[in-house]
Amino acid sequence: MHIQGDMIIGRQAVRGSAGALRAYNPATHAEMEPAFGTATEADLDRACRLAEQALDAYRAVPLEQRARFLETIAEQILAIGPVLIERASAESGLPTARLEGERMRTVNQLRLFAKVVRDGHFLEATLDSALPQRTPPRPDLRMRKIPLGAVAVFGASNFPLAFSVAGGDTASALAAGCPVVVKAHNAHLGTSELVGKAILAAAIECGMPEGVFSLLIGEGNQIGADLVSHPAIKAVGFTGSRSGGLALMRIANARKEPVPVYAEMSSINPFFLLPGALAANTQKLASGFVDSLTLGVGQFCTNPGLVIGLEGEAFNAFCVAAAEALQAKTAGTMLTAGIHKAYVDAVERRAGIEGVQLLARGGEQGAGCAAQAALYQCDAATFLANPALEEEIFGPASILVRCRDEAEMLAVAQHVEGQLTATIHATASDRALAGKLLPTLERKAGRILFNGFPTGVEVSHAMVHGGPFPATSDSRTTSVGATAIERFLRPVCYQDVPSELLPEELRDDNPLGLARVVDGELTITA
Amino acid sequence: MHIQGDMIIGRQAVRGSAGALRAYNPATHAEMEPAFGTATEADLDRACRLAEQALDAYRAVPLEQRARFLETIAEQILAIGPVLIERASAESGLPTARLEGERMRTVNQLRLFAKVVRDGHFLEATLDSALPQRTPPRPDLRMRKIPLGAVAVFGASNFPLAFSVAGGDTASALAAGCPVVVKAHNAHLGTSELVGKAILAAAIECGMPEGVFSLLIGEGNQIGADLVSHPAIKAVGFTGSRSGGLALMRIANARKEPVPVYAEMSSINPFFLLPGALAANTQKLASGFVDSLTLGVGQFCTNPGLVIGLEGEAFNAFCVAAAEALQAKTAGTMLTAGIHKAYVDAVERRAGIEGVQLLARGGEQGAGCAAQAALYQCDAATFLANPALEEEIFGPASILVRCRDEAEMLAVAQHVEGQLTATIHATASDRALAGKLLPTLERKAGRILFNGFPTGVEVSHAMVHGGPFPATSDSRTTSVGATAIERFLRPVCYQDVPSELLPEELRDDNPLGLARVVDGELTITA
Repeated sequence: MHIQGDMIIGRQAVRGSAGALRAYNPATHAEMEPAFGTATEADLDRACRLAEQALDAYRAVPLEQRARFLETIAEQILAIGPVLIERASAESGLPTARLEGERMRTVNQLRLFAKVVRDGHFLEATLDSALPQRTPPRPDLRMRKIPLGAVAVFGASNFPLAFSVAGGDTASALAAGCPVVVKAHNAHLGTSELVGKAILAAAIECGMPEGVFSLLIGEGNQIGADLVSHPAIKAVGFTGSRSGGLALMRIANARKEPVPVYAEMSSINPFFLLPGALAANTQKLASGFVDSLTLGVGQFCTNPGLVIGLEGEAFNAFCVAAAEALQAKTAGTMLTAGIHKAYVDAVERRAGIEGVQLLARGGEQGAGCAAQAALYQCDAATFLANPALEEEIFGPASILVRCRDEAEMLAVAQHVEGQLTATIHATASDRALAGKLLPTLERKAGRILFNGFPTGVEVSHAMVHGGPFPATSDSRTTSVGATAIERFLRPVCYQDVPSELLPEELRDDNPLGLARVVDGELTITA
Repeated sequence: MHIQGDMIIGRQAVRGSAGALRAYNPATHAEMEPAFGTATEADLDRACRLAEQALDAYRAVPLEQRARFLETIAEQILAIGPVLIERASAESGLPTARLEGERMRTVNQLRLFAKVVRDGHFLEATLDSALPQRTPPRPDLRMRKIPLGAVAVFGASNFPLAFSVAGGDTASALAAGCPVVVKAHNAHLGTSELVGKAILAAAIECGMPEGVFSLLIGEGNQIGADLVSHPAIKAVGFTGSRSGGLALMRIANARKEPVPVYAEMSSINPFFLLPGALAANTQKLASGFVDSLTLGVGQFCTNPGLVIGLEGEAFNAFCVAAAEALQAKTAGTMLTAGIHKAYVDAVERRAGIEGVQLLARGGEQGAGCAAQAALYQCDAATFLANPALEEEIFGPASILVRCRDEAEMLAVAQHVEGQLTATIHATASDRALAGKLLPTLERKAGRILFNGFPTGVEVSHAMVHGGPFPATSDSRTTSVGATAIERFLRPVCYQDVPSELLPEELRDDNPLGLARVVDGELTITA
């Protein structure tokens, strides 16, 4: 497949005429071919109007066919072949093995949502029988979920496949029955075109209505603002920086009709080393932590940017071992020149904070956008007094916080902002302290891990990739896993609606064989 | 029980010292005894802090005990006896029979949420087994919902019991495990104190932690703004005007940590008369519509404020019959002097709009805050061109819109803003047109009724009392019915958490006997 610099609007590849953009190779500092045309206001409006017009037809597509559409997207992505991995690697600096894994994750995610669609449990079909003899009589009431409407999706720089054009937001929105308009990430324009055309091919193959998917290209923030402001857009999915997420929230709230924004923004993922675990596994914890910190050049939302332990011999030994492990890590190429510059600046700022000591730097910074890892330490009082130490550094930098006692460790837990994850390393002897930390961490994070590392987010039914603000804009949801579909649905109640006008999922004979709540009891058909 | 002018903060009845307020009898225009003390900033802060402190203890209370707490509140409300009804009637102008019905609805709502709590389905317990042999290995993942935190509740003027101190927002928040801080509605201060003390008595009887419930009194908008701004508050429930709801949304979004606002605001509840139904039941439809319009002096969120029909003989006959029925309705006392004045002004404004004809007025306006019903008509072109005709008039006023043809009727359906309800009157001969209206109305409303009247909102599992903006601030939710509990929950994932630290609902042996999703399959234990 040849990359042509196209957008996709409805059923057509369209060349934008507002301006031109090129992808950039962060390893070689070279601009890449071809040039991509950017969207005019009319292009954006057309994509949004087509999405709105597609809504009723798309949500009426039978669930089996909707599931097949998701599976066909997966097949079409695989059919692109090695060019997808090569282009994504050139645009992102990520190694091909990592991108092959990410492609499989993207494909499996689409297949998971196909299963979710077939199950139909997300419809939450609920029936209350009429009680005509009651005073006053109770009408026949039936409830199901329907899609919110067209969804705008903004991909992330750090996952050019799994959180981008056909990533979790797109997959869950399409699964919910929502048409999707993606704004391509400028850091991987060619990758976006390849995947966008795979979705288009699947939409045509499966007979989906025109407008079910569009892909727009544009420079700067204006196109994003215009997309979120468009009246046809009814929800927004975003993965990126806190400033970017907050900007989209402001725009969405200022609309005549405000719409929900699901922004996954920033997290430093506190990592608690309890005394028993730290003493028992000092070396293993140190190397595991440094591996997790430097994985993908530290460019994961769940990167462990804050380590908390109790002062003492074991903690000192951990610091030494972690420093050594970090020094042995070679500098990796970051995703973009902008991310690299922000990382270098943030690391420098942190070094200048009073009470913060630099423990170690990783291998020397080479050419291109290579990032040298950085490890700091401070005491809990310094951490608690300095809000700047809570800011996410996107990249392989972390700070080790020494606590005098358990009370100070609990104080740090209570102090931190909302997080995607919180990790506890504990042995049986640490159970009492772990039990004290747990209720606080439940209030702070979307996912709590024991004796593991937060990087690596499983795509499954029980996953929560979310958390209280500012980790996300909406703690009630997850952007990864089966329940991500719930973000794009709303309930509708049907009162005394004649059976021939009822949707299939609410008919008496339950033709779809759904699990339903009937008169308050959850029932599963055999 | 004697009304003393108290607030409730934690376990104590407290007399506010910031100022004094009195309830007002809208029928006699008389201020009522006693004076109520209003909250100082310190009172508000204390109530919110206690709520925050109560959270971990309250959410750890076993589900059975939490359910008993809700049932005990119901018992304590019934135990207040006739003084509750008398006071509520004097404060609201509502007849005692209506208030007795509303008390039963309030009590049944608490009992429904007790059942919801016992079922435990709201926890959405989900388990994914570890796959240690997979590459990479899958960890053990378990998900449940936990409460968001302390909830601020603002009651409605028009339901001094069912949407107030112990109304749907409070009941569903307590059911979710959230402590509640209610801001008493100034239109029914005495009713609020009586119900607040019933909740306090139940909390003490059931051994609930201090701070699980507080009731604050205050004048003007400042106390509401302070409450929504308080860092301890993690969600807001509100039923009232559009301007009030929008103001709370702005405050909540401007917080350092934005929080969700569930505001039920305004709806004109379009009421479609299809030709077959209109011809077959002209008289019955006219009298049923006027009964629904004037029920409770038109002071229902689901009041039918917009009627749409096709021009012709049947529609003309409907207009005549509705006008006659309306003229026969006597003027009823409105809830407050402010609501009455707003109604009189709005009715006057509407009469001045070009293309709008007054069809009929109800019985003469008497003394006090009595409201004379009003019925207008216009053609569809006038309605579509004039946004003022879409504004909710809170009270017994409605407008009949004549459409030239089906296309114009569909255009009106597509034009209206988000609504709580939409009603279709149709016989078998109207099915084709009803089928065309349905997809549009699903996108506009939270509840769709056939051949009924929108006033009367059943408290059950399938009810949706919600809808797209501006009907509510969040179309993804309902404020009435079992699923209202979902507004106050968020998911947490537990990865490889040792079994002795797992919450009961996620343990292998499922001690609570919950329905759970296990490896993607919904399972119900026998």
